[in-house]
Formats: sequence, structure tokens, C-alpha cells
Amino acid sequence: MKQYIQAEEWNIIEEGFDPHLNKISESIFSIGNGRMGHRANFEEQYSGETLQGNYMAGVYYPDKTRVGWWKNGYPEYFAKVLNAANWIGLHISIDGEELDLGHAKVTDFKRVLNMKEGYLERTFTAELNSGKQLKIKAKRFCSIADDEIAALHYQVLPLNFEGTISITSFTDGDVKNQDANYDEKFWDEVSALTENENTYLTLRTKKTAFEVCTATQTTLFKNEEAQLLSSASGAAQPKYISLTGEVFVKQGDCIDVYKVGAHISSMNYDKSELQMVSRAALDRASKKGFQQLLKEQAMAWLAKWEESDILIEGDVAAQQAIRFNIFQMNQTYTGKDARLNIGPKGFTGEKYGGSTYWDTEAYCIPFYLATAPAEVSKNLLIYRYKHLQKAIENAEKLGFNNGAALYPMVTMNGEECHNEWEITFEEIHRNGAIAFAIFNYIRYTGDQSYLQEYGLEVLIGIARFWRQRVNWSTDKNSFVMLGVTGPNEYENNINNNWYTNKLAAWCLKYAVEAAKMVQQATPELYQKIVQKTKLQEAEEFSDWINISDKMYYPYDQKEEVFLQQDGYLDKEQLLVSELPAEARPLNQKWSWDRILRSCFIKQADVLQGMYFFEEEFDLETLRRNFNFYESRTVHESSLSPCVHSILASRLNYGQKAYDFYLRTARLDLDDYNNDTEDGLHITSMAGTWMSIVEGFAGMRVSNNQLQFNPFVPQQWKSFSFNINFRGTTLNVRISAEEISIKNYAAEPLAIQVLEQAYLFPPGEKTINIKHADKVY
Amino acid sequence: MKQYIQAEEWNIIEEGFDPHLNKISESIFSIGNGRMGHRANFEEQYSGETLQGNYMAGVYYPDKTRVGWWKNGYPEYFAKVLNAANWIGLHISIDGEELDLGHAKVTDFKRVLNMKEGYLERTFTAELNSGKQLKIKAKRFCSIADDEIAALHYQVLPLNFEGTISITSFTDGDVKNQDANYDEKFWDEVSALTENENTYLTLRTKKTAFEVCTATQTTLFKNEEAQLLSSASGAAQPKYISLTGEVFVKQGDCIDVYKVGAHISSMNYDKSELQMVSRAALDRASKKGFQQLLKEQAMAWLAKWEESDILIEGDVAAQQAIRFNIFQMNQTYTGKDARLNIGPKGFTGEKYGGSTYWDTEAYCIPFYLATAPAEVSKNLLIYRYKHLQKAIENAEKLGFNNGAALYPMVTMNGEECHNEWEITFEEIHRNGAIAFAIFNYIRYTGDQSYLQEYGLEVLIGIARFWRQRVNWSTDKNSFVMLGVTGPNEYENNINNNWYTNKLAAWCLKYAVEAAKMVQQATPELYQKIVQKTKLQEAEEFSDWINISDKMYYPYDQKEEVFLQQDGYLDKEQLLVSELPAEARPLNQKWSWDRILRSCFIKQADVLQGMYFFEEEFDLETLRRNFNFYESRTVHESSLSPCVHSILASRLNYGQKAYDFYLRTARLDLDDYNNDTEDGLHITSMAGTWMSIVEGFAGMRVSNNQLQFNPFVPQQWKSFSFNINFRGTTLNVRISAEEISIKNYAAEPLAIQVLEQAYLFPPGEKTINIKHADKVY
Repeated sequence: MKQYIQAEEWNIIEEGFDPHLNKISESIFSIGNGRMGHRANFEEQYSGETLQGNYMAGVYYPDKTRVGWWKNGYPEYFAKVLNAANWIGLHISIDGEELDLGHAKVTDFKRVLNMKEGYLERTFTAELNSGKQLKIKAKRFCSIADDEIAALHYQVLPLNFEGTISITSFTDGDVKNQDANYDEKFWDEVSALTENENTYLTLRTKKTAFEVCTATQTTLFKNEEAQLLSSASGAAQPKYISLTGEVFVKQGDCIDVYKVGAHISSMNYDKSELQMVSRAALDRASKKGFQQLLKEQAMAWLAKWEESDILIEGDVAAQQAIRFNIFQMNQTYTGKDARLNIGPKGFTGEKYGGSTYWDTEAYCIPFYLATAPAEVSKNLLIYRYKHLQKAIENAEKLGFNNGAALYPMVTMNGEECHNEWEITFEEIHRNGAIAFAIFNYIRYTGDQSYLQEYGLEVLIGIARFWRQRVNWSTDKNSFVMLGVTGPNEYENNINNNWYTNKLAAWCLKYAVEAAKMVQQATPELYQKIVQKTKLQEAEEFSDWINISDKMYYPYDQKEEVFLQQDGYLDKEQLLVSELPAEARPLNQKWSWDRILRSCFIKQADVLQGMYFFEEEFDLETLRRNFNFYESRTVHESSLSPCVHSILASRLNYGQKAYDFYLRTARLDLDDYNNDTEDGLHITSMAGTWMSIVEGFAGMRVSNNQLQFNPFVPQQWKSFSFNINFRGTTLNVRISAEEISIKNYAAEPLAIQVLEQAYLFPPGEKTINIKHADKVY
Repeated sequence: MKQYIQAEEWNIIEEGFDPHLNKISESIFSIGNGRMGHRANFEEQYSGETLQGNYMAGVYYPDKTRVGWWKNGYPEYFAKVLNAANWIGLHISIDGEELDLGHAKVTDFKRVLNMKEGYLERTFTAELNSGKQLKIKAKRFCSIADDEIAALHYQVLPLNFEGTISITSFTDGDVKNQDANYDEKFWDEVSALTENENTYLTLRTKKTAFEVCTATQTTLFKNEEAQLLSSASGAAQPKYISLTGEVFVKQGDCIDVYKVGAHISSMNYDKSELQMVSRAALDRASKKGFQQLLKEQAMAWLAKWEESDILIEGDVAAQQAIRFNIFQMNQTYTGKDARLNIGPKGFTGEKYGGSTYWDTEAYCIPFYLATAPAEVSKNLLIYRYKHLQKAIENAEKLGFNNGAALYPMVTMNGEECHNEWEITFEEIHRNGAIAFAIFNYIRYTGDQSYLQEYGLEVLIGIARFWRQRVNWSTDKNSFVMLGVTGPNEYENNINNNWYTNKLAAWCLKYAVEAAKMVQQATPELYQKIVQKTKLQEAEEFSDWINISDKMYYPYDQKEEVFLQQDGYLDKEQLLVSELPAEARPLNQKWSWDRILRSCFIKQADVLQGMYFFEEEFDLETLRRNFNFYESRTVHESSLSPCVHSILASRLNYGQKAYDFYLRTARLDLDDYNNDTEDGLHITSMAGTWMSIVEGFAGMRVSNNQLQFNPFVPQQWKSFSFNINFRGTTLNVRISAEEISIKNYAAEPLAIQVLEQAYLFPPGEKTINIKHADKVY
């Protein structure tokens, strides 16, 4: 854990330059706009430790699988988000001496991520070996107003010398993924072209043949007077293009470099048009100029914050943290393109392949449902709909048939990428999360039409999978599900994982319900789906209901808890509180077999199920299970504390709820797990939001109505947040004494607060809440 | 399955050259002498498909582990037997045109492995593109009489031309392991020296710094007149050394090349002496000459056959097969050096790393016990004793303490090499097999002194491991063992594997028994061991006995069978007979998860335990379990059919016993599993021997007495075999009517036949056996 980031409400601030922290900061200060993004690498040369990272959403490379021992069914490749051309590059040298923070003496270093307006700023003074001093001010952003554009402004002030500054502005496509399985480079050059101040570097990915044109326009000014740039002389480097300008400067002069980058990919345009489209984008940007682009960026972020901000009174660190989480979620995914999804590291690193996991459905969708237009979540659902055929093929590879669909554990294009058998083939609960997200979308938006258009087909494929995946046990006189891995990956190849069985049984019934809903609403569409999926309604439905009814659920009579899996109580029953400090984290200190046979739990498993289906369980059942499992859970997944925080809130375990919240909120800012340098934990950031809105505020949607069961952590004075609900924007403010809801719509809205129904008219309405019976 | 090998009692014969079969034949015709060996590669250049393989026992390279996803506790490297310098090489060219069976027209090709005398012979006629015809006769062997020496004789007869034959005799150390993880070469050159007809190439392994000097002496004759050889001119190649001779020949001339190879490694000599020792070996060999060396080889093999031959009357294919198995076992391991062991492929290939598996203890030791002096098996036991400290360290890496020892799944030097968690960390029954081998050795030899010197320490380490590996289950009111993989590797991470629990419980008790035996026999030695191992006798012994007594064994009341593991009967219960042909073998047709959750069994598991501890079970219990499990077993391990064959013999399932025997006996000769090209299944060859001696002949040792419960497969007239038992050599001949035992000792020997005691005086004695009640 590190705590070098300064707390401020709207800004992430690093002061002073520590090379040891640089890779961490490169992750934390990353910027993106849903279509592209990059790590907070320096524009100028840097010879110190760095992970150079530029990423284009959806542009991937199928890297040949690497395993120790091949198992039948493993996918041929792991689709990885690609490290793309680095367009921010500037070589700055004075009389031949290059500016490089790896060698210079650096003072007054300050790096700021302005979350309110969506830009990254860096200022410092550097003294070169020669004693020459420069002051640098660099600012850049990826535009969310025009998401093909990014721009930077780099200012150089000579402090104590006169001489010639040479500035080379380059785009370098000769980059490599750090996680390449065979140390291979993934890009080939298509073309490199210079037109005055514009450069166009077009690259093609190997195998997948994506083409991306990275175009830049560089303008150079001395004391606001334009300077000439020309193509660098000398032998051309492959996958590299540059422009150079030289300017004589003296103390008091001001050099300004502006660079606009346009990033145009063949995902969106014909390959023959890439250069033309890039030129148009550069023209569009240059007409506006850097300041105007930045202004538009600030306006666009203002709109985002109006939809999604959370305000915390009385705790600056918490305030900064929650905004950081929301900022990153909005940087990573904007919901405009149903072919894109939310990689576990977003645009901040390349670990885990940058592909789609079940995190999207279980953690991210609730965030986007409440803070963005419905289309955003809908596009995430459609992403899976588009992959249905691949999911069916994936299941076929594993021996399933009749349209059974198994969605992949990790994917970029619908095909499975993961290659640990215990995860790839067995962590099948992911299928249930995808079905649950459809249910959740409809519950929140009230929009059932999604089922007719897309959802029902997905639900049928998933139901068919579960139907074939269970088998009848004469021994147990029930349907059982053998050989699975639950969300708690510290158990592998177990039988009757309660969570998976529960989710499967729910899916089977929900698929039938959904079919009935579609049949009723749009009988013709329903018939089309029946034909398309070759659904044998009578037979398949009764089969599904039968399995759902006769599913086996491990349960312990003595502890009166659901059992995570068969035989869980054969394990030596220890508590996390009994673990010596030096054993933590288990995944670094214990061998894998020891973790597997211990009772310790990586992340919510039974509790994840109780969170999904909380209406089925009374508070006492939840309390028994929470008390039992929470004390055995080590939270070595970033996705675990949020679910515990939400359930703790529900159980009035205020301090626990707050403690769990804290573990997620500043996970990356404080480098809690010592891995922020690899990139940020993007998907779990949604969980932080959930801890506040579903946890502290107790927001639920039930019977088409919003509900709140709020409390305020002792450490805060109040908190408030914006959400949208079915077309209405609301601001909800909660303090220990009251809840105020501002309804921005023209119509009143019925909302339950602490299980009592209220009508909230347009404007603000405050209700006193009494927590006399709650002890925090 | 292929059937191109001709059946003959003492020879393995291939007639006609089919390049598609060449890699298979290279495996089958491999030769070795326990210290070194090589595949049946051609001496002359071959541009077709080949796996070049020369191996030196014990010389290994720690190849950096390659995995998809790292798990805590994985070993850093996989120790691999090294592909060593190829010393047999001869380039033969006529007027500049090279002899290469990849290009020439080949007729009268014949390859013979003479098992009786231990050499490989190859004859063929080749027509080059120019039309020139040559007749070649090549013979070679690895001497078991002088195991540092190998020799070859290569004869060239020009059939229809005159011209200049150039012969280059080379040693090539620039070789690579086909299974190298990172495509790396593992050898560096130390020196290369030519002295007249002798060459010395000394190489050093990377990391492990083994040095091996491969020395050759090449002599060239034309019509029995010696010809000059000289160092090849031109630039020296690295790790390569050669001599060249040129001879003008015409039809009717005869060219003879003799080449002796000495293979001297730093395992046995100081590095500074390698060249000197090599020179002495070459001198020794050259004094004798090729024919004398070959004669000594034949004599040495005669002695081996006297100890270990099995004679089958009435079935040439079976006769050839069993001799092939015995021949390979004796080629692979001679028992002279306790640092060596039996790699799964011996010297015939490099798959599986060439290291030591539990196969040695469970399958090979019974063979060597009965067919070789006791020191041979003893050295295999001492091998593990030498690795005890590493086994303790291995256990410590996994969190065990107090001297608990976990022997590795695969090893070369005692350190674990394997890197699949479900095997590496969980297939711990291997520990039990190592303890059982100690028991088996004492049972067969009657020599308890092994315990005092070595065995007890090993047993204590193993008992301590089991003690820490189990845990008390309040739920089951017993000790349980969670998260293991049994011999049936088609189940992973299961709980209470019956076999492992049984073996562990036995180990715990046997360790106490062994301690008592040592205490009684040699109290001072016992005290030393107590001190060395810091044994808390009273406490640890009572602990071990308690666990052993209260071990949990899964059992099914309805089927009245031991359950392979907890929950086995939750699986869909299918029989192998119900599997469609296209599903076999499962490991190629089904995805791994499907195999795991099916009831199908890879290899004997419960039945392996009933084989080890057969005295504990009555025939009806064995029959129920055999019937239940045999029908669910797919035998996708070469180690499975032999155990089934032995048990089927015991149950009087004659046809089944024979069928299972057949599956092992010609496994490699007929390329049953389509993988012989990778090398031979050396360790399972011992199982073939067991099927006959323990199966058909029903040989056991109990209460210090030999027992036979014989029958003859219908397909045979009779079979006989030689064994040694406690210093006595016996020949046992079994037909349907009688068993004759020839006792070569001076003393009579008491032997039970069909549960009746007999005294067998020196000389032969025949007993009528009646099988009226047995139906085959």
C-alpha cells in the first residue's frame, strides 16, 4: 500500500518525481474516451522504468495459446487488446542534449488528473547534465466529445540558457505487448505519409488484419509565432514517422507544441478510406484549435458528471476516490458501440488480455443502468447477443448440442480465450450472470422489448446449456451439477456449487417466464424465435421447470447455512481472523493445493447468490450466511468487498459496510494490492459505486419502483448522487437525519424509503429518517 | 494400430523401407545399456522424417518452466534428459553424391533387433539418382559388458560402378531437444580434439555444467586393408568434429568402417580426466576389436536372459512381445548406479522429460526383484533415499513442516519438475508407492536391513506428510483427505480418494511397524535415526496409529463397493460398453471437463489399491469391485491393463486376463496408441511381465514363501520363466496340466502351489494341477 496521491475533491495529484512510482502513476493518470486511451507516459524521451501503452478499443490480436500441458478443448489463442501506435511522442533536445527525466535533475514535478474536465496535466523543471534548465508544462486529453481525436499541448520555457531546441514529433508503431506469449510484434506497416505538418502512419495487425491510421498534426510556435517543421532526414525506420523543427531560443522565450492525434480504425471505416477520414478529423480539430477542443471536453465531462457524480461531504479522500472510480468507468466505456466492452484494465494496461469477463454483467451493468441512458447498458447486452452463435459453438466444442450456449470466460470476439481448464471449462456460472443482466436490465428500465428483439434467444441458449450440464443423481434424488468452479476460484472442480446451482435453476425458470412474456406481447415475433431456435416448447419448458424444481442445494442443518459446495464442511474450519499476517495474501504465500483444500474463500460466492436473489431470503438467513462466510473470506479478488459492503449495509453492519467500501474505493489510488502498475482494476470500480448506491443508500428496484434504505457512514456528513430512472433524473442526498430527493422530471415519482411509499413531485422533497434502532 | 513388425521369437524384424514408419521404427529398434542409449537413427545422412536421439543417463538440463498461468508453488524448471552428441554419424558420398535414404531408391531394406545378443542390424541396397548402386550392411550395439562403449560396423559394397567413395565420420553435438520449452540448445562446447583416428568432443550442459566427452575411433578398410583418415578441411563447425577418408572403389570391392564410441561423463569422473578416460576406453575397445566386443555383448545378454527370460510355447507374437518388453527393461536400467532411474521413455525418446515417476516403484521394482540381483532393486530404493532431503524441501514449499516428505511427481535430482497443479501438488499417492516399494522389497528379499540403513528415515518422512495432509472432519467423524488426484487422473482435486486414503493409512501403520523392527534388530542404529529425524516416538506413533484407525473410506452400501472418491455415485453411471466408438480415446475426443465429470476411469485406482493389499480382501469383495470398476475403465494409461490382467487372473476371468495382457504386450510393437514414434512406454513394459508372472502364474510372496496359482491362457501351450528368489534361481514352467519348477540351488525350497505347500528339491519337480473348476 502506498499513499503518495494527494487527496483533492476533483483532482488526482502527484507532487515530486519518484521514478519508482512512475509505472503506478502511468496507470492512475491514464486517460481514455471509450474508443481509445493511453497510459500516462511522458511525451518526451524517458529512459527509466515505464510501461508504454496506447490502446484502441476492439482492435485485438489472437496470440497463440501458451500452456504447459495441453488439455483437449483449450482455445487456440488468447485475444489480446493491442498495444497500438504511440502518437504522443516528442523528442526534445537542446544543442543535441536530450531531455529525459531518467537523466535530468527534476524539480517542481506535478502531475494532475483533472477529472472534472477530463484532462491530464504535468509540469516540472528539468536541469540537464549541461546545467541548462527548462520548465515544461504538458497537457493532454482524449476527447469524449469527438472520440476519434486526442490532443496535447507541450510548452517549453528555457530558464537559464540560449541555444537551439530541436523538437521531433513522432508516431511510433513499432511497439510490443508486454504480455505477448512468444515475444512477437503484432503490427505490420501499411503506409507512412507526411503532408506538411500532418503525418499518417497506417498499420495492420497480423492475423486479424485490423488497420489503424494514426494521424497527427503538429504545430510549433515560438512566442506564438509559427515555426517550420519538416520530415526528419536520414533512413526511414519501419512503423515510425516523424517531423522535426529547430528553434533558437533564449531565456524568456516560450515554445509551444500542439499535437492533435486522430485514430481511425477499419472497425468503423473501409480500409481504403482510413487516411482520408484521418485527414478530415485533423482538419476538424485544427479548425477548432486546442483550447476549443479542451472546452468541448470540459462540457462533455460536465454532462457525464451530471448523470453520474457522487458527492461526499466530510471526507475528501473518499470523495476523490469515488470520483476517480466513476471517472475511469466513464473513460473506459461510453456505450456507443455494441461491439465494445469493458476490459478488466480498460485502457490502462494489457493484463488479462483486455477482453470481456462476467464482471461486465455482474458489476458494471448496474452502474451504467443508473448513470447513463438505457442504450448504454443495452449495448452491453447486445454485445452478448452478437456472440450467441459463438457461444453455441463454444458449447459444441465441449460436447453440448441442440443450441446450448456457453459464453466464454474471456473473450474479444465471442470465442473463448482462457486456458486454465478449471476456469475455461468449469467456471460456467458466467452464463448465469449474462442471463441475470437481462433480467436486471428489464427490472431497472421496465423495457421488456429487449426480450423480443434479442434477450429470449440468449436465454434459450443458456437454459439449454444448463439442462445438459446437470445430471440426475439417484443417490441424491435430485439434479446435480458436477465439476464446476464458482466465483470463489479458491475451489476448483467442485460438485454442487450452491451459487451455480441456484443461478442455473433461476435461469431455467426465467427462460420459460421470458418466453411466456414474449409470447404474450408479440406472438408473431415469438413464433419466429421458436422457429429460429427450433424450440420444442412443451418438452423443453417442462424439462427446464422440472430440473429447476429438483435442483440439489447443499445445506448444513447444524450451521443452518447454504453450503458453498458438497463437502465444504469436511474442511478444517478456520476463520480469517486466525490467519497469521505473514500468510496473507494467500495467493502469494500458500501453494495452490493448500489454498484449494482450505476453507478460505477468495470472493463472495454463496453471498454473491444471496445478493442477486435477495428477495428470496429473510434477513436472518442472510445474517447467518453472511456471518459464516464473511469470516472465511479473504477478498483476494477486487470484486469481493463491494458485495460484502452491500450486504453489510443491508444487515445494518455499518462499520463493516464502510470498511469494505474503503477496500475498494482507493484500491488503485493507494496501490493496495501492489499491482496498480499493471493497470487499474476497472471493472471493480463499478463495485465501489454499488457499495454507495446499493449499499449505503440501499437503492433497489422492485415492482417497477425505486426503493431506498439509507444510512450514512459515521465518517461522513452526508452523501448525494445523481441517477436516472426510467427517463427521470434524480439527485438523492442522504444524511444521518434525512433523505432529500430532487426530481428533475415534470412528473411525480413514487419511491419507497425505508419500506414506506412516498410520492416525490418535481423539485426537491425531504423525508426525515430515523435510525434510532441502528447502531453504527 | 500398425502391424508391420514381423513376429519371430528372438528378433524384431522390419522388412522394406517405409519412410512413414521410420520414426516408429527408430523407437522400436532403440538400443541402450543402462548408462546410455540411442534411437535407431541411420548412420548415414537422412533427409526424411526422423527424431535424432542420443541420451546419457542422469545428464539433464533444467528447462525453465512454461505455463499459461503461474500457480504458487510451481517448480521453476522441468529437468529433461538431454539429447546428447550424435556419435554414429557417417556421411557417405560417391563422386560427390551423398547417400541419403530420403532421396535414393531403396530395396531389400531389412532392420533387425537381435534381442538375444543385443545388437541392431540393418541391410539395404540403395540406388542413387546417378544410377549407382550400393549394398549396405550396418550393425551396432551399446555394450552392456563395458557400458562406456558402443560400437558400429558399417559395410559398403559398390554394386555397379567405379568411383571415389568419401566417408566422413562425425560426432555432432549441436543437437536440440525436440521438447525444449524455449527452443534453446542445451550444450556448450568445451573442446574438440583429433588424434589420428580418434576424435574427442567435450560438451558442457548449460546451467547444470555436466561435462560429457564423446570420443570415437574410426577405422576404414578397403578389402581388409586399412585406409587413411584425416581431419576434414574447411572452417570448423561448433560442437562438431569429423574425420574423412576417400577411397577409389569398383564393383566387387568391400569397404568396412568400424567406429567405436566412448561416452564419458563428469557424473563418474573428474572433469579434467574425461579425455584421458575416453582415450583409455577407446584403447580398451580397439584392442579387442569389433567382433570380440560383439561376442562379449552376446555373452552378457545371455546372462541377462538366464535371469529374466519368459518362454511362451504356441504363440510366436506373444513370445516376441514379452521378450521385447524384457529386453527394453534390461536395456534401460541395470541397477549399477543408485543415481539413475527408469525414465518413462528410457533412451528411446525425450517425452515426459526422461525423469523418474512412481512407475518405478509400482511397476518396475517387482520385475527387477524377480529377475535381477537384489542390489538392482535396492539401488532403486536408495535413489529415493538420496532424495529424501529434497522431498522434505518439496513438502516445505507446500507448507508442510517437521520433516514431512513429499516425493516429486517427476524428478531427475529429487526436485519436483511437474507443473500441473492437479498432478504436481495433488497426485500425492506417489508418496505411498515409494513406501510400498520398501515393504515389497523386504517381503520379496527377506532383507530387513534396508530399513536400518535407509528405509526407516524415508518411511518417517512419508508418515509425517500424511499426518499433516489429513484433517479431522467433525461432519464425518473421521480423518479425511481433501483435494487429491488419484492414479485415475480423469478425476482432479477430489476428496477422499479411496486408494490414497488406504495407502496413507497403511503407510502410517507400516512406519510404526518398521520403527519397531529396527528398534528390535539394531537398537543403537534406531536411536541414531530417532535423533536424526527428531522423532517424538510416543506422540508421533500414537498420532499415526490414531489417524490410520480413524481414516475415512468412501463406501457404497447398495453396490457394496469401495467408492473411488466422495460423490462418485453422483455421476451419471455409464459403462464403457455404452460409449460410441467415435468417443474413444476420450482424452482425444472429449474436452477435459467432460472427462472429469464422467464416471469413466483412466486407469486402475480402487483396483490398484486392491492389487497392493489383496490379502485384506476376500475374493467376493474383489469380484464386486472388479466388476464395478473394470466396466467403467477406459485404460487410457499404459499402466492400467496389467493390473486388471493380474486381478482378472486371480478371479479366474481367463479370457479377460489374456485380453488385458495383449493390450500391454504389443503396445509399442504394434503402435497401439499411435505414439510409439515419441519413444517406447518403458515403465509399462514391466507391467506386461507382471501380467504373466503375477497374473497367469499367480506368483506371490507371503510369509517368506513363494506361491503360485497358475493357469495357461487358452491360446498358449505352455509358458515358462526364470526368476531368482532369495539367492535361488528357479525355472518355472506352466502348462494346462502341470507346473514344473527347476530349482538351480543346492537346497530345497518350500513353495505353495494352489494353496498347498510343496518342497522343491534341487533339480526339477513337476506337480499336476487341475483346473476342472476353472472355465476359461
